[in-house]
This record gives sequence, structure tokens and C-alpha cells, in this order.
Amino acid sequence: MPNQAEGVFIHDKAIVETDRVGAGTRVWAFAHIMPDVTVGTNCNVGDHCFIETGARIGKNVTLKNGNMVWAGVTLEDGVFVGPHVFFTNDLYPRSPRLPQAADRYRNQDWMRPTVIRQGASLGAGSVILAGVTVGDYSMVAAGAVVTRDVPPYTLVVGNPARARSAVCECGQPLEKNKKNVKGRAAVLTCAACGRRFTRNKKGVRPSASKARRG
Amino acid sequence: MPNQAEGVFIHDKAIVETDRVGAGTRVWAFAHIMPDVTVGTNCNVGDHCFIETGARIGKNVTLKNGNMVWAGVTLEDGVFVGPHVFFTNDLYPRSPRLPQAADRYRNQDWMRPTVIRQGASLGAGSVILAGVTVGDYSMVAAGAVVTRDVPPYTLVVGNPARARSAVCECGQPLEKNKKNVKGRAAVLTCAACGRRFTRNKKGVRPSASKARRG
Amino acid sequence: MPNQAEGVFIHDKAIVETDRVGAGTRVWAFAHIMPDVTVGTNCNVGDHCFIETGARIGKNVTLKNGNMVWAGVTLEDGVFVGPHVFFTNDLYPRSPRLPQAADRYRNQDWMRPTVIRQGASLGAGSVILAGVTVGDYSMVAAGAVVTRDVPPYTLVVGNPARARSAVCECGQPLEKNKKNVKGRAAVLTCAACGRRFTRNKKGVRPSASKARRG
Repeated sequence: MPNQAEGVFIHDKAIVETDRVGAGTRVWAFAHIMPDVTVGTNCNVGDHCFIETGARIGKNVTLKNGNMVWAGVTLEDGVFVGPHVFFTNDLYPRSPRLPQAADRYRNQDWMRPTVIRQGASLGAGSVILAGVTVGDYSMVAAGAVVTRDVPPYTLVVGNPARARSAVCECGQPLEKNKKNVKGRAAVLTCAACGRRFTRNKKGVRPSASKARRG
Repeated sequence: MPNQAEGVFIHDKAIVETDRVGAGTRVWAFAHIMPDVTVGTNCNVGDHCFIETGARIGKNVTLKNGNMVWAGVTLEDGVFVGPHVFFTNDLYPRSPRLPQAADRYRNQDWMRPTVIRQGASLGAGSVILAGVTVGDYSMVAAGAVVTRDVPPYTLVVGNPARARSAVCECGQPLEKNKKNVKGRAAVLTCAACGRRFTRNKKGVRPSASKARRG
Repeated sequence: MPNQAEGVFIHDKAIVETDRVGAGTRVWAFAHIMPDVTVGTNCNVGDHCFIETGARIGKNVTLKNGNMVWAGVTLEDGVFVGPHVFFTNDLYPRSPRLPQAADRYRNQDWMRPTVIRQGASLGAGSVILAGVTVGDYSMVAAGAVVTRDVPPYTLVVGNPARARSAVCECGQPLEKNKKNVKGRAAVLTCAACGRRFTRNKKGVRPSASKARRG
């Protein structure tokens, strides 16, 4: 296995084939990181994870166990990926070994990129369809199936996933009893951390005052 | 690896960091049991399972492959966990490495315990939300998403999971064509094993006569 | 480990306990194939897969990572199994170690076989209930829960899975905006590869002209 930066921990039952793992990152048992992958600093890659060449992982990312991050998937800084989340990169998959599908897999035009923006969380066993973007600090509920883009600061639930409420950067839902974030303009304050947000037709954003403080 | 009780089988590709595995229990390839975990007697821990410090596993438990049992999860005696069931222990997860979530993860107040009562079954790929209790001898269908407590002797299906019928201790549904267990008082007899149950407003319970026999 | 046919690749962190792996097949890290399993030629068995004695795998099959193929499951030639698909083989599972279920597991009558027909695709995280057959060249969407047989050339989605459209052998949906394949007789032409199909009350089949060409 390639040499690693100082402060990288790699369990002796893991396989790491890249030398681009950031300082402070830990890789646990039976995980496998393929060649040329870059993993940022201060991440956690749980047992039984698999990271494919062509995936991109920022810093401060937590990958719980059993995750498979394919080519075409980007996890920005501070993302949380719960246990066994399902990423995909092909909307109409066939076995590339099937003669009738050989044309489709002659090049990589079939690949649809997925982007998980900074600070977002993906719940246990959620399914992220190829081609979607999950917005900044959004949260996907456990078991949800995400079939379209998720706006920033939004909690989505169900199959297919639908917006349930706004959510704070710290993870707390902002309006517990509202079923829908498409309401009228409002100022939302997080009961847990005090951060403030503005919601209008364009969606939910941190309030200017808070942006200044942050 | 620590020494084990007599009659414990540990595959040579498994990692077992506790010495509290009960007699007759088998741990298979690429499984990982962390320090200080207690696993009861006569269990089966399938390939690629992960059991975290702080999880509790009774006796006669079957963990099919790929399960991750986190701190805060209790599996009582005789529980069946199908392949790749999703346990969780945090309702609003963020990466603990995300600065905005650092407060949340300073202690363990975020953790919500999950309890699977004796003899219950969790189907393949079901999702068990943090904080729920699945009652004695209940059955969660494959792919169901359990978002609230499941009463004893109840089969639940779907996302979110809803009651479909009563279910016997042996696993057989008790009223195949009923959509709902909330019906009026009745005596239910299992077609497979003959056990008898009483159903009333309080739920389903073994009949006194049977309890005597058992 | 047993000797293998020429041209078989087995990663040095895989466990392969059968000598019946076909030429050109590759088995990746932390995968485990049990004794007496037959895997056809030119397959791919991804990281962390598990194939149980009694499963049957044809040729040209792609098993993405983390799949568990149980006794009773048959994957015909050219099948695609996305990451972490959930196969099952027991409709009413209990822990075989639970005394009340001991009768049920005395023999193998509890087992329900599953068949995935040639060229079909199973999306990431889909759940395949025990006893179903997925027809030739059908496609199961990511996260779908298949509770009954899927006809040939049919794309199914949701929980429970329902037909969304017809689908070509190459993987392309044949009628993007139709919600249901049960429509009147029609000739369908694939926009991607030009293959033609006839749809009538009996379902979707390749057109005779195309069958001749193929």
C-alpha cells in the first residue's frame, strides 16, 4: 500500500490504493479505497466502505459503515453519509457484459454525476438517484428515495422523497409541525443553536445577520 | 484477538475484539465485533456484520449478513435480523466533524436507543428509526421503514410501516386477509402451529390456555 | 482455496470455496463465495459480495458491490445486480434458534425460490421478495420493493413496485411518458438502439422482424 500523510490512520484489514488521504482521516476494517481517489483531511471512512476511482471526498466527511461511493459522486466538506446509503451513477443500468448493452458502455456517456453539497446529511439506507444534487445542509431521512434535486436547508422524507420541513446547519428541523417548506416568507430560528434563516419563494437561506456572525 | 469461551466459532477472517461471546455462537468472515460487546449464547453473526461497543445482543439471535448494530441498539433473545437491516441511533445526524454540529456531539445526548423485543423478526433491508421499540414476536416486512413503535405480535409493512395483520410466535400471519389488527375482540389460532391468541383493544396476546401449555 | 479455471481473477482478499468459477470471471476484495456454487463465465463479483451454497449464477452477470445471493436465488445470463440489492428466500422469517420456530426450520420447505431472468437489471437497494420471478430484460428501479412477479420487458418502480413503462433489451425505457404498460396493442421502437417490440394484452415481446435479425 502507498505511503500516507502523517496522522492518517488505516486499519490493518483495510485496503488503500491511493496516497491522497488527508491528515487526520481514519479508514476502518474491510474498507477499500481505489487508486487515485482523493479523500480530504479529518474524515472517517467506516468498516466495509468502498470508494471507487473517480469519486471525490472533501474534508470533515463522515462515511458510516458499508457505503459505496462510485465514480461520478462528489461529497463536499462536512457531509454525513449514514450507514449503507445507496449511490448510483447510471439511470438505466444493464450488465456491461450483456451483448445488447455493449454499445451503451463503449464510453462513459452513461454516467450521471451526483453532488452532495457541504454539510448535508444522508440518512441510513437512503437511495440517491444518479444525476441529483442534494443542497447545502439538507437532510435526507433514513430510507428515503431521492429522485430529484433537494434544495438547500431542506429535510426530505419518503419514496419518492418530498420536502417535510426546513432544517438548520446544526441538523435540527426548523418547523416541526409543518408538512411543506413552500410556505410564505418567514424568519425561522433554530431552537437548538439559535441560528436564523429567511424563507421565501426562492427557498431557505441563512439570515444576513447570522451570515455576518458565522 | 481475545480468547473465547469454549464452543465459540470465529472465522479466521473475522475480527472479534471482545471476550464476551457466548458458547455455541458463530461469527463469520469479514465480520467485526468491537471491544466490550456482549453476544449471547447460540447466536449466528453473518459475514460482513459490524457490532459496535454499546450494542447488546441476547441469546439465540440470528444476524444475517451485512448488519450493523450500533451503540444504543438492543436485540433481545431469539431475534432474527434479515440481511442488511438499517439500524440508526441519531434522529438528526450531522457529520460530527462539521463545525456547526460540534455542540450536538459534545456528549451522547443525541443518542436514541432502539429495542427489538424477544423473538421479533426484521426483514431484509428494513429501516428501524432511532428510538423505536419493536414488540415481542413482531415481524417487520422486507423493505419497510419503521418510524414508530410496533406492538407485540404484529406484522408491519411499507414506508412508513403500518400494521398488516397479527403474527404468531412461529412466524405465521394469523389473519391473512385482514388489512388491520385494530379489529374487535377475537380468538386467533395459528394455522401452522396451533398456538392461540386473544386480540382486543389492548392488542394481541397469547391465550391463557396456551401460555399454560408453553 | 480450490484451484480455478484459467483466466479467473480472484482478489487476494476474497474467499472462494468453490472450483466452479467460469473463465474470465473476476471476484473482488472481501467477497466470499461458498462451496459448490457455480458462477458462469465472464462475470464480475464486486467487493463485499456473498454467494451462498445453492445460489446459481449464469454467464455475463454483473454483481455490483455488497450483494448477497442466497440459496434458492437464480440469476440467469446477462443479469445486472446493482449495489446492495436485497434478495430473500423466506416469507415469514424467524431466528432458526428461536424454540418456537424450530419446527419451521426442521427441513427446507420454508424456502421460496427467486428467479431473475436473462438480461434483467435490479437497481441499487431494491428489495426482491422471496418467490418472485423478474422477467427477461425487465428493470427494477433503485429502491423499489418487488412483491410480485415482474413481466418481461417492464420497468417497475416504488414500494410496492408497479409497472412504469416498457423497457428495451439495451436498457432504454420505450415510452417515457406513459405511466402504465397495460395499454392497447402497439409497436414500440427503442430510441437508443432501434430494436422493435410489440405490446398487446399478453405483454411486451420483441417484434418478429427484430427477433429474426437478433
